[in-house]
Amino acid sequence: MQFADRLDNVETSAIRELFKLLGKPGIISFAGGFPDSAMFDVDGIREAVNTALTEEAGGALQYGATEGYNPLREQLARFMTDKGASDVAPENLIVTTGSQQALDLLGKALISPGDKVFVEGPTFLATIQCFRLYGAELVSAPIDGEGVKVDELEALIAEHRPKFIYLIPTFGNPSGATLNLERRKKVLELAVKYQTLVIEDDPYGDLYFGAAPPPSLLNLSASVPGSRELLVHCGSLSKVLSPGLRVGWMIAPAELLAKATMCKQFSDAHTSTFAQATAAQYLKAGRMPATLAKVRAVYAERAQAMGQALRRELGDAIEFTQPQGGLFIWARLTGAGGKVGDGNVLAKRAIEKGVAFVPGAPFFCANPDHATLRLSFATADVAKIEEGVARLAQAL
Amino acid sequence: MQFADRLDNVETSAIRELFKLLGKPGIISFAGGFPDSAMFDVDGIREAVNTALTEEAGGALQYGATEGYNPLREQLARFMTDKGASDVAPENLIVTTGSQQALDLLGKALISPGDKVFVEGPTFLATIQCFRLYGAELVSAPIDGEGVKVDELEALIAEHRPKFIYLIPTFGNPSGATLNLERRKKVLELAVKYQTLVIEDDPYGDLYFGAAPPPSLLNLSASVPGSRELLVHCGSLSKVLSPGLRVGWMIAPAELLAKATMCKQFSDAHTSTFAQATAAQYLKAGRMPATLAKVRAVYAERAQAMGQALRRELGDAIEFTQPQGGLFIWARLTGAGGKVGDGNVLAKRAIEKGVAFVPGAPFFCANPDHATLRLSFATADVAKIEEGVARLAQAL
Repeated sequence: MQFADRLDNVETSAIRELFKLLGKPGIISFAGGFPDSAMFDVDGIREAVNTALTEEAGGALQYGATEGYNPLREQLARFMTDKGASDVAPENLIVTTGSQQALDLLGKALISPGDKVFVEGPTFLATIQCFRLYGAELVSAPIDGEGVKVDELEALIAEHRPKFIYLIPTFGNPSGATLNLERRKKVLELAVKYQTLVIEDDPYGDLYFGAAPPPSLLNLSASVPGSRELLVHCGSLSKVLSPGLRVGWMIAPAELLAKATMCKQFSDAHTSTFAQATAAQYLKAGRMPATLAKVRAVYAERAQAMGQALRRELGDAIEFTQPQGGLFIWARLTGAGGKVGDGNVLAKRAIEKGVAFVPGAPFFCANPDHATLRLSFATADVAKIEEGVARLAQAL
Repeated sequence: MQFADRLDNVETSAIRELFKLLGKPGIISFAGGFPDSAMFDVDGIREAVNTALTEEAGGALQYGATEGYNPLREQLARFMTDKGASDVAPENLIVTTGSQQALDLLGKALISPGDKVFVEGPTFLATIQCFRLYGAELVSAPIDGEGVKVDELEALIAEHRPKFIYLIPTFGNPSGATLNLERRKKVLELAVKYQTLVIEDDPYGDLYFGAAPPPSLLNLSASVPGSRELLVHCGSLSKVLSPGLRVGWMIAPAELLAKATMCKQFSDAHTSTFAQATAAQYLKAGRMPATLAKVRAVYAERAQAMGQALRRELGDAIEFTQPQGGLFIWARLTGAGGKVGDGNVLAKRAIEKGVAFVPGAPFFCANPDHATLRLSFATADVAKIEEGVARLAQAL
């Protein structure tokens, strides 16, 4: 069978092969990119779906508008406004089938084969493949612990004139890094200066452990004239409420939102109204603040436990910035004391010792740093984290 | 803002403009392509989702496999087997976000720009746009009341060597036509003879009013050696249970299924597990046969009422084949007695009289028949149908 040429641009994920090994009994996994199922507010979701089926069964079970179910769009606009975004009305956003679909719609609506698209090095794996399927030539913008390096970013923009710049500015996946305030302003200024579209993917911003992170690019855009018209903001309920609902959203300039909506019409017609009505009732019931407080506290404890254990057990063989939110510790093997310095090598040895994580190299679209690894602290409790890190030390 | 070149291949739907007029108070609509909300088994779905949240909350709310939630894949495989398909195991199908997504994934995985793709003339509007977005050059295969004309189809295959052939063989949208048994076999033989992939889109096959329609291409493929490896079958719960769940599925040869799954990974990661677990529990509870019996009886009555009213009120100014299933009457204005002979003209006049339908021309990817119209009998009750047809007669 002859497949579409665009499939030549993607490869089966190296990580997939690793995930096949995770079925080994007794393995402790730091490999996932998902929240802990034990955190799900099952009672709240049950109440929400039952209310939806009682009050609006027709809407919850019938076809709906491609743009999204209006009661949910209203709740999401309020959710964003409560978080400090100005001028987010229901008609400024569309609901997407998880934020993965927002990326797909952006690719479909914007990328012509050969277009340059910037991503952080490293960035979310599925973003790389998603944009490549539409023929994008990805350019890797370097980051440090404070997010993308804006001077290098500007030089790259001037050189490549990208179709758009994709960033996860807050508690990035896999980097855990958060773009500092000064750089955030600079990114918006660069967008205006070069008339370049910026995509802010923000699935983790609500998962902060101490102080709230700097304002989102969306929130800041109010103070950088012209930037709002060059900004897309993608949000998701997946990390804070439930990935299974597949409810994400995208705030974008009107013209782009219309094109993305048209693309969505032919992608899946609309996101499940059953899930949308449930999410709308959940938000309306006012349960989100308590849910957020709970998950923040649990993940904060786990992040601290993992950081302490890594420092204690692996010492100078590993270096990392302690994350202030999100799901991940992004670390680098130093090779100190003749220990393993390659993430891929360590991943295989770790599986033998009964602990799994994801090596960092595949997260780079170019020039991979083979010494890196991504460790999720989200799904194992503190005791498991300590045991897992001890096994990791044995594998070194 | 500069959008992707692929958007140049599609246009905003002419029908969309018409739909904007539907908000007019008191209008009777035959325009929709959806089931009647009053048919939804709300109690059954409520029981299903509550069971899912009690028995498998983790699975229903967490990320899931891109291929689909296994309990649902098992139920769907059984559902298909019960309908006479042989050798449908859970691993032979993937769950899609409505069958619209199956079309999108097929386009993504198979169509390179410039590839020829066959569709029926007329066919489902969103199919035309979906495939064009991937750069397909569509070729219209002519149909009559017995479905696609296989001799003309063979000549077109020999001439164009299409990437694949897309058919809605049973109670087609918009045609209402059902491919007869002899032609079904011939289509499968042509697939083998020319090694051409055939897509069978089957959202309406369960909605029959009297005798069951001929076996699906999927069922028949068992008796045409080599055809199963060249056949894709798309199914959906949208028309029989609830569109809002957005649960469809695709049965395809293994190699294609793997590529479609990879494409889906970057389209929406997976279909809502919340909706999938609900659908799985619904099927497992054994409620589907009663639900199907109910919707068949209601739509049969409405189809008959509309057919009778059309013959009575519009006489020789209209011609159509009385549908044996599905949601639609596809009709043709004859212009007899100096009456309106153009579907578009009639649509506008009809709105003035308080009744809406969709003109047929946009359903053709080429050589539109402007005399055609699509009338849905699904969402209005018998009294409304009779009133609506009387208004239609006034508009003629």
